[in-house]
Amino acid sequence: MVDGCPAGIPLTEEDFLEDLSRRKSGQKGTTPRKEDDLPELLSGVFSGKTTGAPIAVLFRNNNTKSKDYSQLFNHPRPGHSDFVARIKYGGFNDYTGGGHFSGRLTLGLVAAGVIAKKVLSPVSITSKILEIGGTADFDKALNLAQETKDSIGGLIECTVSGLPVGLGEPFFGSVESVISSIVFSIPAIKGIEFGAGFNVVKMTGSFNNDCILDSSGKTETNNSGGINGGISNGNDIVFRVAVKPTPSVSLPQETYNFSTGKVEPLVVIGRHDLCVALRVPPVLEAAAAVALADLSLIAQKTPRVFC
Amino acid sequence: MVDGCPAGIPLTEEDFLEDLSRRKSGQKGTTPRKEDDLPELLSGVFSGKTTGAPIAVLFRNNNTKSKDYSQLFNHPRPGHSDFVARIKYGGFNDYTGGGHFSGRLTLGLVAAGVIAKKVLSPVSITSKILEIGGTADFDKALNLAQETKDSIGGLIECTVSGLPVGLGEPFFGSVESVISSIVFSIPAIKGIEFGAGFNVVKMTGSFNNDCILDSSGKTETNNSGGINGGISNGNDIVFRVAVKPTPSVSLPQETYNFSTGKVEPLVVIGRHDLCVALRVPPVLEAAAAVALADLSLIAQKTPRVFC
Amino acid sequence: MVDGCPAGIPLTEEDFLEDLSRRKSGQKGTTPRKEDDLPELLSGVFSGKTTGAPIAVLFRNNNTKSKDYSQLFNHPRPGHSDFVARIKYGGFNDYTGGGHFSGRLTLGLVAAGVIAKKVLSPVSITSKILEIGGTADFDKALNLAQETKDSIGGLIECTVSGLPVGLGEPFFGSVESVISSIVFSIPAIKGIEFGAGFNVVKMTGSFNNDCILDSSGKTETNNSGGINGGISNGNDIVFRVAVKPTPSVSLPQETYNFSTGKVEPLVVIGRHDLCVALRVPPVLEAAAAVALADLSLIAQKTPRVFC
Amino acid sequence: MVDGCPAGIPLTEEDFLEDLSRRKSGQKGTTPRKEDDLPELLSGVFSGKTTGAPIAVLFRNNNTKSKDYSQLFNHPRPGHSDFVARIKYGGFNDYTGGGHFSGRLTLGLVAAGVIAKKVLSPVSITSKILEIGGTADFDKALNLAQETKDSIGGLIECTVSGLPVGLGEPFFGSVESVISSIVFSIPAIKGIEFGAGFNVVKMTGSFNNDCILDSSGKTETNNSGGINGGISNGNDIVFRVAVKPTPSVSLPQETYNFSTGKVEPLVVIGRHDLCVALRVPPVLEAAAAVALADLSLIAQKTPRVFC
Repeated sequence: MVDGCPAGIPLTEEDFLEDLSRRKSGQKGTTPRKEDDLPELLSGVFSGKTTGAPIAVLFRNNNTKSKDYSQLFNHPRPGHSDFVARIKYGGFNDYTGGGHFSGRLTLGLVAAGVIAKKVLSPVSITSKILEIGGTADFDKALNLAQETKDSIGGLIECTVSGLPVGLGEPFFGSVESVISSIVFSIPAIKGIEFGAGFNVVKMTGSFNNDCILDSSGKTETNNSGGINGGISNGNDIVFRVAVKPTPSVSLPQETYNFSTGKVEPLVVIGRHDLCVALRVPPVLEAAAAVALADLSLIAQKTPRVFC
Repeated sequence: MVDGCPAGIPLTEEDFLEDLSRRKSGQKGTTPRKEDDLPELLSGVFSGKTTGAPIAVLFRNNNTKSKDYSQLFNHPRPGHSDFVARIKYGGFNDYTGGGHFSGRLTLGLVAAGVIAKKVLSPVSITSKILEIGGTADFDKALNLAQETKDSIGGLIECTVSGLPVGLGEPFFGSVESVISSIVFSIPAIKGIEFGAGFNVVKMTGSFNNDCILDSSGKTETNNSGGINGGISNGNDIVFRVAVKPTPSVSLPQETYNFSTGKVEPLVVIGRHDLCVALRVPPVLEAAAAVALADLSLIAQKTPRVFC
Repeated sequence: MVDGCPAGIPLTEEDFLEDLSRRKSGQKGTTPRKEDDLPELLSGVFSGKTTGAPIAVLFRNNNTKSKDYSQLFNHPRPGHSDFVARIKYGGFNDYTGGGHFSGRLTLGLVAAGVIAKKVLSPVSITSKILEIGGTADFDKALNLAQETKDSIGGLIECTVSGLPVGLGEPFFGSVESVISSIVFSIPAIKGIEFGAGFNVVKMTGSFNNDCILDSSGKTETNNSGGINGGISNGNDIVFRVAVKPTPSVSLPQETYNFSTGKVEPLVVIGRHDLCVALRVPPVLEAAAAVALADLSLIAQKTPRVFC
Repeated sequence: MVDGCPAGIPLTEEDFLEDLSRRKSGQKGTTPRKEDDLPELLSGVFSGKTTGAPIAVLFRNNNTKSKDYSQLFNHPRPGHSDFVARIKYGGFNDYTGGGHFSGRLTLGLVAAGVIAKKVLSPVSITSKILEIGGTADFDKALNLAQETKDSIGGLIECTVSGLPVGLGEPFFGSVESVISSIVFSIPAIKGIEFGAGFNVVKMTGSFNNDCILDSSGKTETNNSGGINGGISNGNDIVFRVAVKPTPSVSLPQETYNFSTGKVEPLVVIGRHDLCVALRVPPVLEAAAAVALADLSLIAQKTPRVFC
């Protein structure tokens, strides 16, 4: 459900397919489960254009729920949400994988991102995987993971070009605040850094500062990642995220079993993503798009009396 | 202004002094400006206890505004918000340093943190500076910065102990989302990572997963930083942030001058923090406290039927 | 979509049918269009109980859109949203009746109310129609409206019993604020009054004040409608709303036509509610339930140290 | 504290004085307590113009708290918030009159209204008292109340002229929802009606509908109060509120005493407003201004492609 989208933007179900397809499983290194992921546009569009009313997009779970998950209620997977969900929701959580901890929820984020990208048009948002399993040789990393029945993490960079100066709101609405808040909703993200990021720890101010070159705000370097004082400065917004290896692996893992009261080996049945990071790029772009579209719509209220 | 604080919590103006003092300038490596920073408790407290009404704490700027800032409107400092503020607010921004980009705004966050820590009691929130200027030898780093008239960044770790299992809300309200959103409001923060953080990029799943040891959720390792699926898991919450070197340095810096239309050297008059990271720990703790107090108050609505 | 519902509450699709049926058209005085209005519970429920995750309920429009509405874009109905929608959404609004001004949106409110009533259980929320067309003789009023091809308004009272003392939040979150805000989302509502309502205008303070009888807060009279200082006082919450006659009538009506640039008679084709107020009671109860469930979940954060 | 105000709007402390003075006590029929009510503009303004940063306005309570209130904790006034505050806040509420149930909180609303009116400029917002104590002869009503040591209520009408077509957001953000939500924060308001209000109950649709006269949306009558489908239609917004008689009267009143466990006469010491409605007009205008300024800033995000 996307609310607040301006009226008059062309939007069809086909517009969602490219990003949804990029997120889809089935590539090497991702789980072979078939998920159709076809979006159904329920409201907010009339004659092929947005109406200004809330836009609802529906994805159905076509797969029948497997019995793979039944053991996990009492023998929770390490690194997964099984344990916390059981406690937080008093045992009423959907432990069969269909609940709100499912990675499938990122489908909705990707769909929202498709709409947000149109709101931001002609801004460009792209992302690339810098490394997986500690290397840029992706085939090698995936083969090793497959052989060892394990999973691997990845590092992804997202770049936003063409954004105007001035997005971001005072203090709690900094561009970094709004982007990071949505990005950490994506399962498996454990870190985010903007511009020079953690490298600033070792830099001096004179080196880290980006020299402003002209009245448009263009800078010589981009250590700030396109953001000063929480506000977009007209240069590319650049940020990187750390994606952890999916906790479901084929190797047996020691962990506590509520039924027996002991730490015991758990074998997670089914096939799993070797590297869930491979599916993250369109989700990451969507998170950035939603964050920036929100800030863009909010920012329009400020007059431009000067400059 | 803090709203939603439960009634009956003891609170006096003295309670604020310790954290405010830790944030204060005047230590080696921080700016020698005198700021009294004495809080005035305006509302929400009666007979030494919170009433349930909004709590207002007032800090006044006692220093007269200097003329140091007047040149910066047309010759904006690189790495600072001068340029974006001028554009975003159409030239109406307060360029004398008193506006909402001032580092003094973290005073309010520290004050809110004092109240939040009481709401969370007996949870403990601490932080430590791991390194500044690329080393753990702080004296050496500060001396070098002083000699070179430059500034240096720092790496800080925050640890939250004693938090119950179950804080954090579905998807957009993950613990990482809420903490990072507030943390990136703190000026100069350019990165945040939870638990193993960016190291997960190189880990395998079987190594990264934290073995659950008993029914309380205690884990053998803490690569997750105390959070699974966005929900606190009962172990310490651990996160680190990258603090950039303050952009105001005594060295001349090349940057665009609106008055002349040229890139020209700028000398920022006045004395500056050699390492603003030294003042960040109480602010970081406050950010964590506010985020977790919010999640704690929200989470009470969920029944605990089971376990 | 209902978020924030506690886990463990029994909920099935059947639970929605009674209130949906009460709202349904087909009774004397309401439009004979057939709307199946069967709810589909898409998420947030597992094994017949809520999971704590967001609850999505889907209603489909089964009727094909008629061409009845095509003329209304250029010849907007008086008293309807046709004109404002055209201007606000730049002509991109769905003028065929399927958009967000449709009375069908109250379906979602009724569904949310079913869930909210369960959250509030065992609180009782009921409503009754006090008069339609200026009389308590409903048959007579409806017959007259049918003969004159016109529509009539109504007055409805809603009563909430069993609510604890203490719901409502400081200033902007008064019980009256939260209820009225949702109630005025219901199309056709033009007034709301609590307790003695507009009669307080003619009362003296000594007469209007409700004498408190015991430590539970029970009062002798209930002129306050169960609310003091914006907070529930333990007595019945009582409020009344004015429902306007539906603007779509079979009589020709003079109004501006964009195509011709003149004020011309408009005949609204199709059959219409003689008295839409007849369908409002379950919607009104739902609005009250949603408002009070929200306040109830929020209020749990306040400790009960005393009394 | 007002956030989101655009930059560049002229604003000084003097701008607040007129509306604050209109709200002030001291007129016939209002309490003779002296309240200086001088505003102190703490932030958000630079060189006489708003900066785009949050605007803080401070009012201090200059009067020392009287002992008049100490008895009220155990012998709560009927019709007042004393009882609910005691229960809701567990006995920690400020029962001396300085807390968030104080009528003085409307000072802040009036101040916010002054800023909101500037944001809406050149929209005009006015209000008038239609009757007090059941009559339009105000002197007669006040004299009678004074003689009988009682208080009286009033009926007030507010009119907003010059608002564009299109304010108000889908469903939950109707103009009536947003205005009523803020209006019911004002103490003593027990009812609100828009346009023909409760009279619509007796009207037919053909009579109630407002004939649209031209392409600007101007209507022949204004039974809708300037709002259709929750959206402003370009005509005057008109609404009326019922203000109850202040519950503090000089007459002894029977009510429960916690100390004795009995219903006993209470004499409320001090002098009180004979008719608090006399002070409501500037507060009511402020509430309308704040509501409409919010909707105005939100509405700017929708493009105006058509018309």
